[in-house]
Amino acid sequence: MSPPSPDPLRGASSLRDWLEARRPEVEMALDRYLPAAPACPDRLGEAMRYSLLAGGKRLRPVLVLASAEATAIASGADPAAALALAMPAACALELIHTYSLVHDDLPAMDDDTLRRGRPTNHVVFGEGLAILAGDALLTEAFVLMAREPASNGDAALDARKLRAIAVVAGAAGACGMVGGQAIDLEAAGSGAQFDADGLKAMHARKTGELIRASAVAGAIMAGASDAQVAAIQRFASELGLAFQIVDDILDVEGASADLGKTAGKDAAAGKPTYPALYGLDASRRMAHECVTRAVAALDGGGLAGQLPAIAQWVTSRTN
Amino acid sequence: MSPPSPDPLRGASSLRDWLEARRPEVEMALDRYLPAAPACPDRLGEAMRYSLLAGGKRLRPVLVLASAEATAIASGADPAAALALAMPAACALELIHTYSLVHDDLPAMDDDTLRRGRPTNHVVFGEGLAILAGDALLTEAFVLMAREPASNGDAALDARKLRAIAVVAGAAGACGMVGGQAIDLEAAGSGAQFDADGLKAMHARKTGELIRASAVAGAIMAGASDAQVAAIQRFASELGLAFQIVDDILDVEGASADLGKTAGKDAAAGKPTYPALYGLDASRRMAHECVTRAVAALDGGGLAGQLPAIAQWVTSRTN
Repeated sequence: MSPPSPDPLRGASSLRDWLEARRPEVEMALDRYLPAAPACPDRLGEAMRYSLLAGGKRLRPVLVLASAEATAIASGADPAAALALAMPAACALELIHTYSLVHDDLPAMDDDTLRRGRPTNHVVFGEGLAILAGDALLTEAFVLMAREPASNGDAALDARKLRAIAVVAGAAGACGMVGGQAIDLEAAGSGAQFDADGLKAMHARKTGELIRASAVAGAIMAGASDAQVAAIQRFASELGLAFQIVDDILDVEGASADLGKTAGKDAAAGKPTYPALYGLDASRRMAHECVTRAVAALDGGGLAGQLPAIAQWVTSRTN
Repeated sequence: MSPPSPDPLRGASSLRDWLEARRPEVEMALDRYLPAAPACPDRLGEAMRYSLLAGGKRLRPVLVLASAEATAIASGADPAAALALAMPAACALELIHTYSLVHDDLPAMDDDTLRRGRPTNHVVFGEGLAILAGDALLTEAFVLMAREPASNGDAALDARKLRAIAVVAGAAGACGMVGGQAIDLEAAGSGAQFDADGLKAMHARKTGELIRASAVAGAIMAGASDAQVAAIQRFASELGLAFQIVDDILDVEGASADLGKTAGKDAAAGKPTYPALYGLDASRRMAHECVTRAVAALDGGGLAGQLPAIAQWVTSRTN
């Protein structure tokens, strides 16, 4: 019998309670917001739901919501109202994250057959439908952010929604996530090795931008001031880097069962990783330093709520 | 020597002049709005520009602009201002149309190697980058519509932009264009034949929805009333159907050189077409009836401008 895993949420019971309250709300909202038959063709809807409702940490929605709540608390506004305002954006970020995984797993990209412990989308639905399901998930994210919450002539809400769409689309697009994927693809194709700066820059786009946009979109939807948005930006940029370092560490350590994806794949493929460049101990130290800087950034905006605990959780996670 | 082609713009010199004025504006705006290096990685930017700036009729931007101008004229507003307000949406619609072509041409989809007389995107850049270029074109469309025209605190403009984003994203997504592509893909995979209603419903999504959204988005950006939007909706729905019927006729007639794509492909692949279902003469008659109904719909909203001439042009085109 293997010993029980260390509990990454130990000593953070309020974060656990908070996550246990938020995650079912996110799952229900995702299911409710997804287009359904007959407007959405059956098989396309199945393919979208297969990947979207496959579980996962829901880190991006959690960040959207925690950031909205922290903004409300700091501003003396109603946290519950902020959570409700931010829920559509929270779901939209998960739609975008899921689309990126579906396309990333395609044979022409990472060619992966296992994700979250299940066959990848194209293995189940075929390449053509997997491409379309990704396209649809991405597009529906913007349908959702444009329509919800309903504006009803509230000009301030309209302005927040537009600003959030601009932030999220910008982070997901050619200068953000897709740009990072293109850089990664080019390097893999040419056999070129990243140096430390190149690796950081690639990950800052590929993973970091969407994490940053999640936290920023939550703050915007809750009516954050410019100073608050700036503090959240700094927090989330550090968090995104910490997240990627930990991901690399977990990949090298081959925590395959928990990760539910092909373990050691990046390292085996000769893809650069933080442990390969710096060693495991230094990588762990770097992740912790990121979290320290992330939490310090929040003080500047008088923000907190669950955000510091989420940063700790992200680095101490085992999957 | 072959006789000169009949000129589809004969007797419509004002439309020709108008198109000659608008198209360079669209080309310049597309080039200006596209993200550039270093924010956008070089090769990704190249792949996006390769397909986006490959020419074409620019039907969707033309419809956005004509619809905005007609709305302004009917409302006694400044047509030039309406054109400027609608230009970002006009470009966004072309970005979305181009992304759909890039993904549609992929080996896992239509597997086409020729488009607008040139090798398709994945032939030049590889499948992985073609997928990413499509993803980026789609995402940048929403970056553009959210950012431009700059709101500067104009609440009425914010409301128009949000409404236009909702219309365009809805038309491009699972219940619109991508849904139509999924239905088409499913039918091709299963060998199932469409009946007349099924064919019309598939095309209404796959081609019609984006044409409809183009015209509607233009009207919205120009501040159209609900009655004007409704009239434009009816106009554009009929126009979309006419466009597809003519596309099928041109495919069957094998006007390959002008179309710049593999001619007779749909018919040869056993895909249902209007001529196959109804014969050529009846198909031509149906297209003309659509145009008649389209133009009649405009009268209800007191709209005109270039829209009736564009409808005539779409059905009399030879490529």
